[in-house]
Amino acid sequence: MTKKISLLGATGSIGTQTLDILQSNPERFKLIACSAGTNIDAIRKIITHHHPLIVSVMNQSDAQVLSTEFPATQFYYGKEGLIEVAAYAGADLLINAVIGSVGLEPTLHAIRAGIPIAIANKETLVAAGEIVMQEARHHEVPIVPVDSEHSALFQALNGENPKRISRLLLTASGGSFRHLTRSELNNVTVEQALAHPNWSMGNKLTIDSATMMNKGLEVIEAHHLFQMPFDKIDCVLHKESIIHSMVEFEDTSVMAQLGSPDMRVPIQYAMTYPDRIPMQQPKPLRLEEIGALHFEKMDFDRYKALSLAYEAGKEGGTMPAVMNAANEIAVHLFMKGAIPFLQIEEIVERMMNEHQSINAPTLEAVLEADSNTRQKVYDMVK
Amino acid sequence: MTKKISLLGATGSIGTQTLDILQSNPERFKLIACSAGTNIDAIRKIITHHHPLIVSVMNQSDAQVLSTEFPATQFYYGKEGLIEVAAYAGADLLINAVIGSVGLEPTLHAIRAGIPIAIANKETLVAAGEIVMQEARHHEVPIVPVDSEHSALFQALNGENPKRISRLLLTASGGSFRHLTRSELNNVTVEQALAHPNWSMGNKLTIDSATMMNKGLEVIEAHHLFQMPFDKIDCVLHKESIIHSMVEFEDTSVMAQLGSPDMRVPIQYAMTYPDRIPMQQPKPLRLEEIGALHFEKMDFDRYKALSLAYEAGKEGGTMPAVMNAANEIAVHLFMKGAIPFLQIEEIVERMMNEHQSINAPTLEAVLEADSNTRQKVYDMVK
Repeated sequence: MTKKISLLGATGSIGTQTLDILQSNPERFKLIACSAGTNIDAIRKIITHHHPLIVSVMNQSDAQVLSTEFPATQFYYGKEGLIEVAAYAGADLLINAVIGSVGLEPTLHAIRAGIPIAIANKETLVAAGEIVMQEARHHEVPIVPVDSEHSALFQALNGENPKRISRLLLTASGGSFRHLTRSELNNVTVEQALAHPNWSMGNKLTIDSATMMNKGLEVIEAHHLFQMPFDKIDCVLHKESIIHSMVEFEDTSVMAQLGSPDMRVPIQYAMTYPDRIPMQQPKPLRLEEIGALHFEKMDFDRYKALSLAYEAGKEGGTMPAVMNAANEIAVHLFMKGAIPFLQIEEIVERMMNEHQSINAPTLEAVLEADSNTRQKVYDMVK
Repeated sequence: MTKKISLLGATGSIGTQTLDILQSNPERFKLIACSAGTNIDAIRKIITHHHPLIVSVMNQSDAQVLSTEFPATQFYYGKEGLIEVAAYAGADLLINAVIGSVGLEPTLHAIRAGIPIAIANKETLVAAGEIVMQEARHHEVPIVPVDSEHSALFQALNGENPKRISRLLLTASGGSFRHLTRSELNNVTVEQALAHPNWSMGNKLTIDSATMMNKGLEVIEAHHLFQMPFDKIDCVLHKESIIHSMVEFEDTSVMAQLGSPDMRVPIQYAMTYPDRIPMQQPKPLRLEEIGALHFEKMDFDRYKALSLAYEAGKEGGTMPAVMNAANEIAVHLFMKGAIPFLQIEEIVERMMNEHQSINAPTLEAVLEADSNTRQKVYDMVK
């Protein structure tokens, strides 16, 4: 039977690769709804090829233009448009691949509509993991990870008794600046930061990878997805990014998922789980050609953003939302050339220090902490 | 509930480690039957500690002596004794840890008695894998691997659709002579061969590891256990023995089981599957301390025994039994100092060349091929 797919973030890195998988497997998957931002040419191609029933874009004017071009499709825009796509009733699976905490409210609407979610939007779980997972349990909606690390953990836990987990072990490449000391990070450029050694990812993710904030977001994401306390979530440096993550069990056995760095694998797995299907134009792993896999103890002094994320995660409440919002804006400012690289984590730390976390917050409290922090960062740098 | 355990080969390497696990978990496991060879002191200690109901030893005279010492225990001896222990009706699990094809008939008797089997005795599956697996399917008796490589595959397949397997990938340390060329192998000694770099194993297994015949036996074992054609079973050199084996799926995802080299882990898993329990005196894996895992293409010219095993496996019928029997006797002769190291594989090759394989053989045909080959090797070297 064909699985009907809704896709948030269709023109981004994950979105594009998701559409490749749909295109390779037309008998299995059908795009029925999607969202994008302002890349209208890309949206035109998607509509021409996949004929989704509803589409949301960022701006009203683009929605109006597209409406006249594609009368068979229903168009929405803005935040409400994202929610329309996320909660679109006909879908068998929502793939949430937007970037940033903007994905939070659409996720909650999809859960309440009973639509299973494949989540690539880690900021949603970071900002409001407790609320999201509680709603998901309440509505019995499965949340399947798309991130390669969490997909690896998810695959390693297949068929296992979660009570027997002793440790989740996230691997980290170290990002584009892994060979630099902290003092050498002072003058790095945006271009250097965007050159990730292993993965082809979106820009935000590549910067987060260079600061190691990405791993911090993943630690918090793993905490929520697998209901695991922070002292049972470890990180290890593994520069080849071949072992995508591991689970250690109480009998000392470690289950790992490996592969060539290819985001299509975890995306497709989230779409076919618990089954698998052949990969089109596969990039099979050849360990004998790679020769060696290296591992190093994580350096929490070198990667301060990771320490901040553990702190925010352990503090809980609204603190992770503040950390995430500060990071989103700081990364944005760095990419615009407004602040130097090391100031990203300084901003995150300062925003966390200035925030008084609210325990067991409502969604409104999370959103308020998020938007207040964004404004504060902008004001600070202005 | 306490699981009642029968154990063939109680005083060997696997047997001893199995008893350690029993001793650490008296509320979970109880030894009710066991066999051993001629190490009577070791047997006395086992009986004193575990109070098995029945015990089999190799020689009648030992059985008689023990009978007077332990009147509450029933004693058997020889091949019939092994069968008594294997098929002992009260057992919930038989752990077959004898060495060599002597384990074949007891395995079949256990299957017919409906007793689940944890199999460490790879020669049984090599010599008569088709017969054993057919009987196991017929009687719906699970055969769970104990070998670290097959346990790794078994764990990696947990929860997976076996139709999606594209490749089983066995890792091989390369054994005690992995740094030597073929010509340097001419004059190696028994002592050198017995010094395995990673694993503490029995002598037969350590020699098989040095010739790479061990990996060959494992390839054939994997073929039967997982119903996988030989062209989907690969080997890769991995000198650290940390990744115990891997399964590659059609989506290019590779699932692996890792751990410190500690045979208690796969033994215990076979006893607790599908659950796990904490390991006593655990040796947790610390990849950051190991630093690097290395992989090399398998060298089939260097390790001729592995090529022979693939040949025998693909030929099928009685050929694997002949290969295994020739290897068992050749290893025995090498350990006695009667032949040089490289002659082990020469003998195996010659016995295979001189044998006309019988397709879909009966058990009798397998046993005949086995014993004829043993006699021929002895006659040849005499």
